[in-house]
Amino acid sequence: MITSEDAIKFIFENISEFGQEKVNTLDAIGKILREPIQAERDQPPFDRVTMDGIAINFNSYEQGRRSFLVTETQFAGDSPSTLEEANSCIEIMTGSILPTHANCIIPIEQLIKKDKKYVINQNHQPKKYQYIHRQGSDHKLNALIFDIGHKIKTIDISAILSCNKDNVSVNIDPKIAVISTGNELVAAGKKIFSHQIRMSNGPAILSMLKNHNYENSEYKHLIDDKELQYKNINEVLNSSDVIILSGGVSMGKADYIPEILKELGVKNIFHKILQRPGKPMWFGIGPKGQLVFALPGNPVSTITCCRHYVIPALNLASGQRNIISEFVQLQKNIIFKPPLTYLLPVKIRNSKNGILEANPIETNTSGDFTTLIDTDGYIELPSNKEEFNKSEIFSFYRW
Amino acid sequence: MITSEDAIKFIFENISEFGQEKVNTLDAIGKILREPIQAERDQPPFDRVTMDGIAINFNSYEQGRRSFLVTETQFAGDSPSTLEEANSCIEIMTGSILPTHANCIIPIEQLIKKDKKYVINQNHQPKKYQYIHRQGSDHKLNALIFDIGHKIKTIDISAILSCNKDNVSVNIDPKIAVISTGNELVAAGKKIFSHQIRMSNGPAILSMLKNHNYENSEYKHLIDDKELQYKNINEVLNSSDVIILSGGVSMGKADYIPEILKELGVKNIFHKILQRPGKPMWFGIGPKGQLVFALPGNPVSTITCCRHYVIPALNLASGQRNIISEFVQLQKNIIFKPPLTYLLPVKIRNSKNGILEANPIETNTSGDFTTLIDTDGYIELPSNKEEFNKSEIFSFYRW
Repeated sequence: MITSEDAIKFIFENISEFGQEKVNTLDAIGKILREPIQAERDQPPFDRVTMDGIAINFNSYEQGRRSFLVTETQFAGDSPSTLEEANSCIEIMTGSILPTHANCIIPIEQLIKKDKKYVINQNHQPKKYQYIHRQGSDHKLNALIFDIGHKIKTIDISAILSCNKDNVSVNIDPKIAVISTGNELVAAGKKIFSHQIRMSNGPAILSMLKNHNYENSEYKHLIDDKELQYKNINEVLNSSDVIILSGGVSMGKADYIPEILKELGVKNIFHKILQRPGKPMWFGIGPKGQLVFALPGNPVSTITCCRHYVIPALNLASGQRNIISEFVQLQKNIIFKPPLTYLLPVKIRNSKNGILEANPIETNTSGDFTTLIDTDGYIELPSNKEEFNKSEIFSFYRW
Repeated sequence: MITSEDAIKFIFENISEFGQEKVNTLDAIGKILREPIQAERDQPPFDRVTMDGIAINFNSYEQGRRSFLVTETQFAGDSPSTLEEANSCIEIMTGSILPTHANCIIPIEQLIKKDKKYVINQNHQPKKYQYIHRQGSDHKLNALIFDIGHKIKTIDISAILSCNKDNVSVNIDPKIAVISTGNELVAAGKKIFSHQIRMSNGPAILSMLKNHNYENSEYKHLIDDKELQYKNINEVLNSSDVIILSGGVSMGKADYIPEILKELGVKNIFHKILQRPGKPMWFGIGPKGQLVFALPGNPVSTITCCRHYVIPALNLASGQRNIISEFVQLQKNIIFKPPLTYLLPVKIRNSKNGILEANPIETNTSGDFTTLIDTDGYIELPSNKEEFNKSEIFSFYRW
């Protein structure tokens, strides 16, 4: 058996990157950027007026002038007017380019209009370049705005469009086959006997993949029949980049998966990890480089292993860099003996002192998904110690 | 002008709930639940075996027996076998129902097989009911699993399916019209002059709506032409539940929006909020109860007002209850004078002591979206004080 850290290392060593494609920028949320995004222009691209009012030359004000004759009105989007005389001003709107020879904006709230003239309120003390957002003060032309490997967030879309990129190179959504196995499972909506349980692993994996922006997945449930499983796994091996199996990898007499995968030429990288839950996890590489994850069928194991191993593998193969770690404060003493890493589901509360508090939900090795209700993810309690104390900080993984 | 708190209160008072519809459970992620979800059965629904091994009667072990004759093999999903004799055992797989008369599981790792018998390892000290997840120990039949108003998370999908609900009642996705205005704006991909800027508000609003699971939106950009704006706003008023406008609500000469809305019979609830950014925000109710938000056109104002007022309004109208607040620790001293509430964009870092640290990004009243790059949301600095100190805790709103 190997450690959880080694399992991640071995998976990462065996990954090759998925391809890339151009998509419409509006469809790129949650994707991994595969090209650098650079500024199209200085930002702001011109000296930009930030208040409605008048544009004047500050020298005139300094020389004592308080009253200005309107010569023109300039709207946002108009090309720049020119301030011709020391006593003149231009009526100006927020978002406009600064008129030629102007270097100060007096806001409308500080003005009194008299015929064709504006008079500045006595109490107002303008400064040179006030209410002007100077050209290039945010960033310069060609500045690197987003680097390769950035995961595109909602808030980034407009910034990408501001760089004049209406389409961008991102990872191709890999084709993922999800197969759950087990005779005891009955889908929602179908008649169930008392010794059976509701099927939840397949939908749980699909939902998690979707949540992490992998939408090109298919799901199938198979009973514990070796021939049937062989046939179906063979089929998806030929048509998928990634195969995620759930169930059939433990020591039970109907646990055929490792045997079938071997027969199909999937090279086993490891089987069993020093962890709870999910000890029987199996990982291998198919003949064409397909990633094959065989997760234990216990629902808590399935979803935890999917989040801990499958999702980071997909992100890496998609080209993601700079993955952000989260840290939370344990709210209860936990005893858990070496040598297993303990991946413990928690409910997070962001306390009024700004701390992320993790309240453990001990799942009683549950066969059902309902114990995970209302949890936000799990914390990783390392394998090299036994006592984990209230107020200690641990790594947190959000579902 | 009203306070930010009053603005939220007035919006909430004027909202009526959107309708509800049944959707496939797998499509319900991010929706607001409009029916309670109750447990279909006890959970676990039967005494459930949690290890591969043998099932015995613990009395036999207590009376000194260490060797057991296999009479049957029971797989997960099989109906329960019966333990007939004190010296017999049943080979059993994880996930099975406990055989009749059995009350203890010995895992395969603790057994030695001799012909048709299993002998328990000398070092193993079994306990009654070990490796059995007792019926109803997680929850009982009809227990309330999710209440009305719950926002459905990825991790909830399987739990809902486990309650035998393959479809659920959730809010109807409201029809939302997004209209931005302004002559200075040019879409990505089109030729731009030096006095123009890239169009970003519409896509920013659309992305944010999508991020909060409102996907039924349409977007249009209009130049500053009063007749054109009147015609288009009239059209969307007739076909939408919610209208979000951006631009044209300030004091500029081309700011026609409040006038147009009045002419179209939209009742103004408020105009202008004591806040930065976004002071000129306008809110009203259309003739058929449509929510009409007219946001200031500065990109930072637009997106901040959208997150602070529009999203909570949509969530409330969708039926959401129990909205979770977030609290973060300010990392820098800020001076900001009353009487405005300051909504300040921040970049969040989850430090190694478990604290959410908020690093402010002062946006220089930017007309461009690029200043918001890499921010996670904004903090709310209340209007009743002037000094906001490093290490103080404030409310945080995630984009």
